[in-house]
Amino acid sequence: MGNFDLLLLAPVGSIIALLFAAYLAFSILSKDQGTPRMKEIAQAVKVGSKAYLKRQYAGVAIFFIVVFIILYIMALKKYLVIFVPYAFLTGGLFSGLAGFIGMSIATESSNRTTAAAMKSLNSGLRVAFSSGAVMGLVVVGLGLLDLSIWYYFLDWYYSSHPIPIGTDKITAITSTMLCFGMGASSQALFARVGGGIFTKAADVGADLVGKVEAGIPEDDPRNPAVIADNVGDNVGDVAGMGADLYESYVGSIVATAALGVAAGLGVAGVTVPMVMAAVGVFCSILGTFFVRSSEEAKQNVLLAALRKGIFVSAILVAVTSYFLIRFTLGVENLGVYWSVLSGLIAGVLIGLSTEYFTSSNFKPTRSVADASLTGPATVIISGMSVGMMSTFFPVIIIGIAILTSFFLSGGAANFQAGLYGVGISAVGLLSTLGITLATDAYGPVADNAGGNAQMSNLPPEVRKRTDALDALGNTTAATGKGFAIGSAALTALALIAAYREQVALYGKEMTLSLMNPNLLVGLFLGGMLPFLFSSMTMRAVGRAAGKIVVEVRRQFKEIVGLMEGEAKPDYARCVKIATVAAQKEMILPSLTAIIAPIVVGLLIGVEATVGLLIGTLVCGFVLAIMMANSGGAWDNAKKYIEEGNLGGKGSFAHKASVVGDTVGDPFKDTAGPSINILIKLMSMVSIVFTSFVISNTLFK
Amino acid sequence: MGNFDLLLLAPVGSIIALLFAAYLAFSILSKDQGTPRMKEIAQAVKVGSKAYLKRQYAGVAIFFIVVFIILYIMALKKYLVIFVPYAFLTGGLFSGLAGFIGMSIATESSNRTTAAAMKSLNSGLRVAFSSGAVMGLVVVGLGLLDLSIWYYFLDWYYSSHPIPIGTDKITAITSTMLCFGMGASSQALFARVGGGIFTKAADVGADLVGKVEAGIPEDDPRNPAVIADNVGDNVGDVAGMGADLYESYVGSIVATAALGVAAGLGVAGVTVPMVMAAVGVFCSILGTFFVRSSEEAKQNVLLAALRKGIFVSAILVAVTSYFLIRFTLGVENLGVYWSVLSGLIAGVLIGLSTEYFTSSNFKPTRSVADASLTGPATVIISGMSVGMMSTFFPVIIIGIAILTSFFLSGGAANFQAGLYGVGISAVGLLSTLGITLATDAYGPVADNAGGNAQMSNLPPEVRKRTDALDALGNTTAATGKGFAIGSAALTALALIAAYREQVALYGKEMTLSLMNPNLLVGLFLGGMLPFLFSSMTMRAVGRAAGKIVVEVRRQFKEIVGLMEGEAKPDYARCVKIATVAAQKEMILPSLTAIIAPIVVGLLIGVEATVGLLIGTLVCGFVLAIMMANSGGAWDNAKKYIEEGNLGGKGSFAHKASVVGDTVGDPFKDTAGPSINILIKLMSMVSIVFTSFVISNTLFK
Repeated sequence: MGNFDLLLLAPVGSIIALLFAAYLAFSILSKDQGTPRMKEIAQAVKVGSKAYLKRQYAGVAIFFIVVFIILYIMALKKYLVIFVPYAFLTGGLFSGLAGFIGMSIATESSNRTTAAAMKSLNSGLRVAFSSGAVMGLVVVGLGLLDLSIWYYFLDWYYSSHPIPIGTDKITAITSTMLCFGMGASSQALFARVGGGIFTKAADVGADLVGKVEAGIPEDDPRNPAVIADNVGDNVGDVAGMGADLYESYVGSIVATAALGVAAGLGVAGVTVPMVMAAVGVFCSILGTFFVRSSEEAKQNVLLAALRKGIFVSAILVAVTSYFLIRFTLGVENLGVYWSVLSGLIAGVLIGLSTEYFTSSNFKPTRSVADASLTGPATVIISGMSVGMMSTFFPVIIIGIAILTSFFLSGGAANFQAGLYGVGISAVGLLSTLGITLATDAYGPVADNAGGNAQMSNLPPEVRKRTDALDALGNTTAATGKGFAIGSAALTALALIAAYREQVALYGKEMTLSLMNPNLLVGLFLGGMLPFLFSSMTMRAVGRAAGKIVVEVRRQFKEIVGLMEGEAKPDYARCVKIATVAAQKEMILPSLTAIIAPIVVGLLIGVEATVGLLIGTLVCGFVLAIMMANSGGAWDNAKKYIEEGNLGGKGSFAHKASVVGDTVGDPFKDTAGPSINILIKLMSMVSIVFTSFVISNTLFK
Repeated sequence: MGNFDLLLLAPVGSIIALLFAAYLAFSILSKDQGTPRMKEIAQAVKVGSKAYLKRQYAGVAIFFIVVFIILYIMALKKYLVIFVPYAFLTGGLFSGLAGFIGMSIATESSNRTTAAAMKSLNSGLRVAFSSGAVMGLVVVGLGLLDLSIWYYFLDWYYSSHPIPIGTDKITAITSTMLCFGMGASSQALFARVGGGIFTKAADVGADLVGKVEAGIPEDDPRNPAVIADNVGDNVGDVAGMGADLYESYVGSIVATAALGVAAGLGVAGVTVPMVMAAVGVFCSILGTFFVRSSEEAKQNVLLAALRKGIFVSAILVAVTSYFLIRFTLGVENLGVYWSVLSGLIAGVLIGLSTEYFTSSNFKPTRSVADASLTGPATVIISGMSVGMMSTFFPVIIIGIAILTSFFLSGGAANFQAGLYGVGISAVGLLSTLGITLATDAYGPVADNAGGNAQMSNLPPEVRKRTDALDALGNTTAATGKGFAIGSAALTALALIAAYREQVALYGKEMTLSLMNPNLLVGLFLGGMLPFLFSSMTMRAVGRAAGKIVVEVRRQFKEIVGLMEGEAKPDYARCVKIATVAAQKEMILPSLTAIIAPIVVGLLIGVEATVGLLIGTLVCGFVLAIMMANSGGAWDNAKKYIEEGNLGGKGSFAHKASVVGDTVGDPFKDTAGPSINILIKLMSMVSIVFTSFVISNTLFK
């Protein structure tokens, strides 16, 4: 009964998160909106973003209806518990809602941030950070709400109805809940891939014609694609990132719950991840109060302020989860506590490693900048080389996190307990999501605020302040990306382990030996998939950017007085073109991700599916880090040169570094982050289709 | 006794291969050497190549002595059979000898090919192809000789002495022979990495200053790095490729022999791979007689002639191995024959896939060429995208080859028999190595012949003929690379399976479940290694090329009358700089490859080592294909533009395509091919250190 009471913290935490988010949102909306010009620009971005999201959700809705029908038929044929199709819908709906709310507030915040930055740097920081915090808290709040509703509903329902799977109620609950993630995963994939294609098509298209051909600066209002570029920041980096982490958050909790039950921990196994998440909400909210600094502080003081918020939250989680585990699982299972710590520490360390490889304060990015002196080819080679090198530490960190969380939670004696430990480490890593995501979603708001200042012709000191906020955002984005990749890896691992339990629940024993040829072929296929997937998404960016290029060229040519600033470009048309292109281009890679695990399972069995998932996890993890960090290094090498080093803006070196940055764009903002979701979605699909695949495998 | 008699075909085959190679070599040496200028240039390349190889072998000798001492101490401590250290030496020695002979003939052949091309295209083809055939036959001849000597020696020795490992003589023989490969693997790694760094440093360095800065054409005698560039073709593409395939050849045979004995096939299990290799020698020699065509034939007729040679050999192997298997293993094991076929077919199909993605006759490379119209960034993005896409078919092909060779040779009922089948498919793929390598090593000879014609100011029609020969070489190189990668994957798989048997022989049972956390961490580490390794080798090329750039600039500045053609550049200095740089730069990546499996095994056990090997195999296979094919596509996109398409030479598109080609150089000729050996060498090291690692693992 004690556990049950504690579990109530989950819905309580979710509601507090949502209430605090609402409070922050209203306080943002009450801020000054700036000059009419600033409002006008923000309005254009807002309209474009909403138009994009509306169209995206309309397309995704069709997908959800089709899959719902398929799942429903499968449920009627007893391949699935009847609640799964509905859970699939709510997962998608809540994830979409989180993206919508977060993005709406972000678009409301950009001009307000600019207006606040007219007063002081610190005021600007507060508005932008509050906007990020809304995104972070809405994600965790809605995630916990979805989980709580279903947990209590299933608990009530199975108390008076026959259990559809497993031998006890709690197994039936966790096995059903495990399938929830597929809705969130699908939504996340579309958000990441579609948003990623949109944002980079607009960015590359705007740069290629505006900066390179017409010779006008970035964010120049004469560039017809400039609003699309700003819209892209919101739909890609805010809504996309939010959906990605929503999925990790929900996925890690349901997978860990299922693993806990499989380890024989019963309701307590479910309580720990859910309540740890709730505790994380409180700690994150407390942490936000530490993000403040004196007026006109230097940039590194601001960074320290943001970091303080995260560290305070993490330490609070570390302390409280000790008591939570001791109280819920008993002293004999206290080893699980090490899993929490290893997850938390792994997240921080991967972030630091990312920063080392992508910040121009350190050697790797400097070497990329130096390479620009000998031209674009050497920039590309050295950037690729830095990205490849940067995979070393994250792999070591995740490896140590896996081993410590497995063995210190008792995996040597009890295999299932070890897997539960791995799941808990993912939950531990994600518990501070409320505030970590805040520092991350803050970035695009600052970026947009800078664009707004530029387009509104505000005095240079305002632009300088927004640039400082933006630079800060680049650093936190690096840390955030490390966090997203690390959490995706641990979550995917927990999901794969949970998949194994699901297969066992459906009565199939697997031989997961590496020497099993089917599994081995699955591994090869899995290793190839992230490459195939990245190829598709990068090609998509290229094609979509090409369309933007054509349109921008057309407007420059056909609209009289545009270059002289006497006529206005047709921003909406560029937004529309990018939207349509992104929606079209996201279909093929997304379907590949969904269909691959089913086809492989049907052809050569569930062992091959496990191989496929692990292959995708391993290769995808490494490739995603490489792409993200190569892209980050190229981006910051260019910025370093633009600060006046190695010849500065307009020099030969600068031109070479722009080539690197352009290559890096689809690497770091489209293909790389999409791989995170590829890994998780494939695991989710495998879980949902377990029974169907087992029953219909061709060559067993 | 019947088997024993048949086995004699192995030494017989090896001697016939060597004799035929000697005959071809003498017939090449009797050909016309051309004008004094042609001789002089060839002499410079010859001297440079020999100087490189001499220095390389001197460095490698130190490595071999150190490792020999380590192995000897391990043998004294009973971690190893006492013959292993000596076998390690002979493996390295024979591989080095094959590289030396092949390269010596290649450097003798370039000016003779040019001289023959002054008469006709076909005469040029014959000289160049004969030179390639010497390399191919020396590799298979020396490989088979080494294996035969050791087999008969151990057979004799263990007949009268106690068996050091296993329960019967044949197990002791194959277990000892399995360790031979490490010598060949080490030699191959140094040849590939060192040669790869040399060739691309010289190439990139020559191009960056010569073509880009000074504006003189490729192969211009005024360029001080031009001889180094030609030397690079020989040490990288001839000696390096030869050592790579020598290793696959020997490795696949010893691994398959060990798997055959583990499958309970006894001496017959050893006979099949050894005799199949010997049969392959005869078939290859027969095949060479089909490589001829009428005078002044068109290029596609020449290509057809080369292909005819390969296909005739392959069909002959396919037919004779049927009878070999039927006679040696009996009708009940006839399923193994499917393995031979699946290996042969997989090799051909991977080659065709490579050609599709890298030839400018097809869409992928055309799309890279088209992308050059929008600048270097889009060239890079589309080339990467093509390379990533091109991993799809090879993975499917290898997957099908694994499954068919495993299951059709009876793996479902007898697991070991299935693994033996996988090994046989590698042997089948490699059986036609004599002629396949001939068509591959032919390429650099043709390339050098073109350089010779250019530097000797021969009439344009001669250069046109050598260009035609060179273009043919590019196509066969693509096929050859597919062959090398495919054979490396299957060989590595056989080696890993043999490693498992070796571990079992030392009395350790492994749990190879994918859910074993140590193994999983091994997989992650293995997945990361090819990236780390590629990062190191690409960086090394960058640094070495930088040194060449400095030197070429210095000579242009300091040598009076050089640009006017009145003074001669100091070719030897560039060769020396590239040599020293390559020798220095190859140490770190090579040691990483050797130390990684030992360290991982010692820290977290042999299961983790298996994970490491499989992780490296899967990720390395995919990454190697991507790098090779991206590089090939960039190279041929540039050539396509140089043929006059999309603006032709000197256009904006051409400049963009040159950036792609420069990035592709270390991709396709240094990092990509080195990964092949990384995979095999790591397996070999694991095998040799099996007992040591098992006894000294820290956390078991």
